[in-house]
Amino acid sequence: MTTAEMTVFESMESNVRGYCRDWPTLFDTASGAWLRDSQGRDYLDFFAGAGALNYGHNNPVLKAALIDYIARDGITHGLDMSTAAKRDLLQAIDRVLLTPRGLDYKVQFPGPTGANAVEAALKLARKVTGRTTVLNFTNAFHGMTLGALAVTGNAAKRAGAGVPLSHVNSMPFDGYLDDADELSWMERALDDGSSGVDKPAAVIVETVQGEGGVNVARPQWLRRLAELCSARDILLIVDDVQMGCGRTGPFFSFEVAGITPDIVTLSKSIGGYGLPMALVLMRPELDQWTPGEHNGTFRGNNPAFVTATAALEHFWSDGTLAESTAAKGDRIQRSFTELVDEYPGLSTRGRGLVQGLVFEEASEAGKVCHIAFEQGLLVETSGADDEVVKLLPPLTITDDELDHGLGVLTRSVAAVRGGH
Amino acid sequence: MTTAEMTVFESMESNVRGYCRDWPTLFDTASGAWLRDSQGRDYLDFFAGAGALNYGHNNPVLKAALIDYIARDGITHGLDMSTAAKRDLLQAIDRVLLTPRGLDYKVQFPGPTGANAVEAALKLARKVTGRTTVLNFTNAFHGMTLGALAVTGNAAKRAGAGVPLSHVNSMPFDGYLDDADELSWMERALDDGSSGVDKPAAVIVETVQGEGGVNVARPQWLRRLAELCSARDILLIVDDVQMGCGRTGPFFSFEVAGITPDIVTLSKSIGGYGLPMALVLMRPELDQWTPGEHNGTFRGNNPAFVTATAALEHFWSDGTLAESTAAKGDRIQRSFTELVDEYPGLSTRGRGLVQGLVFEEASEAGKVCHIAFEQGLLVETSGADDEVVKLLPPLTITDDELDHGLGVLTRSVAAVRGGH
Amino acid sequence: MTTAEMTVFESMESNVRGYCRDWPTLFDTASGAWLRDSQGRDYLDFFAGAGALNYGHNNPVLKAALIDYIARDGITHGLDMSTAAKRDLLQAIDRVLLTPRGLDYKVQFPGPTGANAVEAALKLARKVTGRTTVLNFTNAFHGMTLGALAVTGNAAKRAGAGVPLSHVNSMPFDGYLDDADELSWMERALDDGSSGVDKPAAVIVETVQGEGGVNVARPQWLRRLAELCSARDILLIVDDVQMGCGRTGPFFSFEVAGITPDIVTLSKSIGGYGLPMALVLMRPELDQWTPGEHNGTFRGNNPAFVTATAALEHFWSDGTLAESTAAKGDRIQRSFTELVDEYPGLSTRGRGLVQGLVFEEASEAGKVCHIAFEQGLLVETSGADDEVVKLLPPLTITDDELDHGLGVLTRSVAAVRGGH
Amino acid sequence: MTTAEMTVFESMESNVRGYCRDWPTLFDTASGAWLRDSQGRDYLDFFAGAGALNYGHNNPVLKAALIDYIARDGITHGLDMSTAAKRDLLQAIDRVLLTPRGLDYKVQFPGPTGANAVEAALKLARKVTGRTTVLNFTNAFHGMTLGALAVTGNAAKRAGAGVPLSHVNSMPFDGYLDDADELSWMERALDDGSSGVDKPAAVIVETVQGEGGVNVARPQWLRRLAELCSARDILLIVDDVQMGCGRTGPFFSFEVAGITPDIVTLSKSIGGYGLPMALVLMRPELDQWTPGEHNGTFRGNNPAFVTATAALEHFWSDGTLAESTAAKGDRIQRSFTELVDEYPGLSTRGRGLVQGLVFEEASEAGKVCHIAFEQGLLVETSGADDEVVKLLPPLTITDDELDHGLGVLTRSVAAVRGGH
Repeated sequence: MTTAEMTVFESMESNVRGYCRDWPTLFDTASGAWLRDSQGRDYLDFFAGAGALNYGHNNPVLKAALIDYIARDGITHGLDMSTAAKRDLLQAIDRVLLTPRGLDYKVQFPGPTGANAVEAALKLARKVTGRTTVLNFTNAFHGMTLGALAVTGNAAKRAGAGVPLSHVNSMPFDGYLDDADELSWMERALDDGSSGVDKPAAVIVETVQGEGGVNVARPQWLRRLAELCSARDILLIVDDVQMGCGRTGPFFSFEVAGITPDIVTLSKSIGGYGLPMALVLMRPELDQWTPGEHNGTFRGNNPAFVTATAALEHFWSDGTLAESTAAKGDRIQRSFTELVDEYPGLSTRGRGLVQGLVFEEASEAGKVCHIAFEQGLLVETSGADDEVVKLLPPLTITDDELDHGLGVLTRSVAAVRGGH
Repeated sequence: MTTAEMTVFESMESNVRGYCRDWPTLFDTASGAWLRDSQGRDYLDFFAGAGALNYGHNNPVLKAALIDYIARDGITHGLDMSTAAKRDLLQAIDRVLLTPRGLDYKVQFPGPTGANAVEAALKLARKVTGRTTVLNFTNAFHGMTLGALAVTGNAAKRAGAGVPLSHVNSMPFDGYLDDADELSWMERALDDGSSGVDKPAAVIVETVQGEGGVNVARPQWLRRLAELCSARDILLIVDDVQMGCGRTGPFFSFEVAGITPDIVTLSKSIGGYGLPMALVLMRPELDQWTPGEHNGTFRGNNPAFVTATAALEHFWSDGTLAESTAAKGDRIQRSFTELVDEYPGLSTRGRGLVQGLVFEEASEAGKVCHIAFEQGLLVETSGADDEVVKLLPPLTITDDELDHGLGVLTRSVAAVRGGH
Repeated sequence: MTTAEMTVFESMESNVRGYCRDWPTLFDTASGAWLRDSQGRDYLDFFAGAGALNYGHNNPVLKAALIDYIARDGITHGLDMSTAAKRDLLQAIDRVLLTPRGLDYKVQFPGPTGANAVEAALKLARKVTGRTTVLNFTNAFHGMTLGALAVTGNAAKRAGAGVPLSHVNSMPFDGYLDDADELSWMERALDDGSSGVDKPAAVIVETVQGEGGVNVARPQWLRRLAELCSARDILLIVDDVQMGCGRTGPFFSFEVAGITPDIVTLSKSIGGYGLPMALVLMRPELDQWTPGEHNGTFRGNNPAFVTATAALEHFWSDGTLAESTAAKGDRIQRSFTELVDEYPGLSTRGRGLVQGLVFEEASEAGKVCHIAFEQGLLVETSGADDEVVKLLPPLTITDDELDHGLGVLTRSVAAVRGGH
Repeated sequence: MTTAEMTVFESMESNVRGYCRDWPTLFDTASGAWLRDSQGRDYLDFFAGAGALNYGHNNPVLKAALIDYIARDGITHGLDMSTAAKRDLLQAIDRVLLTPRGLDYKVQFPGPTGANAVEAALKLARKVTGRTTVLNFTNAFHGMTLGALAVTGNAAKRAGAGVPLSHVNSMPFDGYLDDADELSWMERALDDGSSGVDKPAAVIVETVQGEGGVNVARPQWLRRLAELCSARDILLIVDDVQMGCGRTGPFFSFEVAGITPDIVTLSKSIGGYGLPMALVLMRPELDQWTPGEHNGTFRGNNPAFVTATAALEHFWSDGTLAESTAAKGDRIQRSFTELVDEYPGLSTRGRGLVQGLVFEEASEAGKVCHIAFEQGLLVETSGADDEVVKLLPPLTITDDELDHGLGVLTRSVAAVRGGH
């Protein structure tokens, strides 16, 4: 980016901007796992729009469907009117996602962001149960609007609310405590009428906490959590905004545990092409909304419905993508294990194509990402102290591309650690 | 819509769906002021995506820019990375919107919905002032997420929150009270240290309340409100999500009053083509965000930046659109005045191309809309009791189209009232 | 007070202490309308324990009953056990207060403070109605605990909460607005489903706001308020902590308006002798408490029950006290009218033996009280800006004592105004 | 109690009354450890006004001082004026309590209830730190007003609030979890910037939870809690309303742990004679109250100051009472151990003269108390399920009286268990 090009962002755009500071160039075009900047330089993408680009940038199958739809003047903005594009999507959801998995969910189209889906889920859970408290988990990330922010863990982001965040209670996530069973506190608190923890409407959980530092809940922990909820008439909300759409392998991240949440939120990659869209899935008996009780101007972003339908049909009609995601996750794990073996103070965790390289010395993670960027690789940190290098490559990345990026990463670690 | 086509929506889509109940057909394509359903029937649009389609459906100028951008693999999903599309938009905002009006605002890209822009504005106002209370107005509508819902007036929507909505205080809007100056209560409450109304961080106001029933604030009322705020170090937020982008004539709806809000929210038509996008404008000294303090996955919906830029340049480089909007508003007013003169119990109010026909007997408004739909016109009610037929046609509607729609409306009123 | 005597308060007692700063002497004994300090100096009391000493200090009739009870080892601390002292009190309440007035109330013994009675009333109103919001009034004072503080108007006291005060909405009290009917805003807000004011559980009101500046609600205003509540299934709570027990003339301050509140709080003078005690009266059908749902260690302060019973029987078996209170109030009014006539910028308001002399120049009120203290008269300011000299003499004060105190006050005003 | 005597309570007193249901007689007089009812029947008191009568009923030393004060017309109701009685009390606090223990506290006189002292402590902690959250513990009991209720554990009592209880977070008390260190969760939550637990203003704790079921915090747990707070600039509030004034042996219950809380609340027995009174002690640098910022009509209950002073001087000038309390606690423990050894499903816990006999089968505890009452012993249950027979005898009870009561209790257990 030239100085002149940078000026407009610095002078006009709010200080709230973030990623442009870590990756100081002017991006212009993108394709698959690659972005190109205005100078013609290419960058391999290990971030994938924070998980919104599971099928890569501008996937040609989806692109063709999108251009065709626009060209023929398909409805662009449809509120919650019935449209042909929405009909096709609903049918694809039924055929590709729900029926094969034996799932019975009603589908809500909230405003087209993950935060809006979370807000809708929380509102519904409170309305249906008549209770106000929601239990969330340490290191959770669910969004920046007031309801979603209240169930988000990060103290700096919470402070941005400007008001106390109420009606929630944070509980330790799987693996959070060194010496204790994390669910024993929740279980005791729920069962003791004098615990001071009000009986909640719902528990909201991510199966893998991406923003929180690639914290992976074990299947048995998720199962126990689900049982704990269902036995007490507490709704279980799985926020699959980042981990759904195949990020961990199967389409829904909770499939690994064999559980069926009461409510599921989806966004990010559900639109397929990176276009804004979100869904709330809910057990039919929970669908106690009155018409228009939760609305939003952009809840009918029909071009996204078109690319969502194409993505479901193209990628999820069989198990190929889930299998390759698992295989690529293993590939990353092998590379990370070598790093962990070589460098003390490193560890690794992840599932499918969300993988974290964890640095005991937190500042090293950021340095690694910085060097990687200079080598043409986009990768970001996460975790409470930004101590985790988090890999979220497109699921469609090739093995060669993956190896290339892992090579850059390996050399970046070496540079930081002074090895090689 | 055939029975089979309806089945998928009824069986799969949440009960929260609304407009599809009033307009029970399957929409497929659209162009300008017209939508076409799957049976090939055309509908004239006096709703314009609740104000998100000020330039009509699939405007060819914007469409060309959009297809071109997609075809050349322009970045689709950019988070808050610097992109060529965003650079172009920022420059257009500066050149077309800010500089000509002598406005000095920093630009924030929040999540791509009006509610998210409102949430960001409220968070910022509370953070900057260190106060928690926000004053809002009767009949206000600002969105469905928890922070935005708290400043929304409608009791049914508020009840959907499932938790008490706090840190706000509703004040009477211009014209709300029969026998009193509406601002005198606010002024007294703010100046009296024993009023029980905590000093607010901000006041949030719509200059015309669309959802609330086409309630029009007089310029002198807005000026007094602005002075009342600035004299007391209270921030004034104008929520221009629905009334901005030329809906009332000038680009910003507050221009009519000659005031400069501290914070402005934009969404709906800012993307031009009906694509999800939102902006927060703030006085530079208020830009106290830290990087990433308010974020969101879809805050970089670059295709919308492309159509937004094209719309600004095409429609706002001169005063033509503002003038024609005023003229068309007069055209509607003339038609409405005839109705008011003919039928007792009707009245009318509005500004520019947001115009309301108000029925003393509230149920008649819905009946008029129902009959209009059967005659191929999409128009909706608003107001606390759905007592207002609200006209929000595209600003680009032709006079002939407008006359056609007004004719349908006149006949619909006659049918309800048993006249003619 | 000698320097040594002052030292212990300054070095050991919290900075929160207040009255001792205005009246810097060491009080020791008291009788009737007089206090005596450790130097043997006498002070006439126009404050009466902020309304807790309506029958004067250490009234001999009550004193005899109290000493007798203690001497014979009557139960001192009885929680909510049934005791002979409580039985006698309940019977006196029925015989002296309720039956003659045709009132049917259940009696709750909350913790022995006005704030606790208010907290109990608010909890009950919310529990019974299932709603959370309570409407209060500008300049209201209901106590310092979190629930009571939320319905209190004073900004400085509210700020002491350290948390935002929620679930309340302040409305303009009678006479608060210059140019409008104060109840029209409340009425419109309650009847409009889009007002943003959530339907309240209750309205809490003082008939005369003592701390708030001797603001007197007109009987017709109170009646309209009561009708407004009952027509909408909203509970009316009259906080008679300061204005009850005959302060305004009749035992209950609301008798002047002929209304019957749903819930009444009493404290201050209900114990008769200045001993801590409080009551909540509620319509029988509202008594939906479960056993122990609101409790408190000192809710059975039996010595106060004894003096309360004696006070009811001695002072309220006929109308003598109410009549003499009215007459004494007139006596004050005549004196105040002379002051108002003589000095510009003064006005007066009050009812019975709560009377306020209001200074346009607020600081003069404090100066008057300061000079009065030096002349041996205890009198305090109230109001948002401490602009009101508030008279709350014992109801049992003699005419001579009253005249003496009014003489001191007249001379104090003259000294401040430089007259005479 | 005759039927006629009961009628007045049933017909007139609110359903909220509690103890009178368990102990259905009409109490009249009391002395030492004994109450007498209107039929002349005597009851041994193992409840002591829920801890408000540590020195027994109507202790003759205090009684003499009280009658003398009343007889000589000492100030009864003094707000926060300086009085001779308050001076004497402050000096006694300094001489008897603070100086010998090396404590440096400022003394606040809040409203005369434990709940009011807790409200004041919470307000001060939030004000001083500028933070809103307070951490409390499972099974905590701190009072029934809105702020105090929020930090109370019992679900039924919390539900009585009628509003969600916010700005608090409940943590597991010592011994609450079977398999984990209870403080590890709190420590991790405080140290992790992404825990979702907002940094608190304060932690409020009882060293022994009386209402919560006689849960005893170990000294080392209290020390670790104190260190955890001080290292993080979090205020430690010890609520010593029930456990202070020698209930556990030493005057302050926290002395056993060698810690110095930042804020201490006292009430119940601080007045000595069962008269309403409360204190807040705070480190001098925390005394950031402005004058009158927390007030209350009965904060100057001077008769209680007189008995409080007499009690401090009479009982706490040496270590006799603390020693005898320990010895009597051992006496109860020996008796309880015999019961535990004889009957399966019983256990015991306590410290000093707060001792609990815990029943695995919760309903048996209530039956034991019922039978004991019939045998002339007043004793109550506590705990989340009322599973604990809680002994709170006066500290001044004689060994013979104690043995008598323990005998009744032993026979009551036997009767319930069918033994002997």
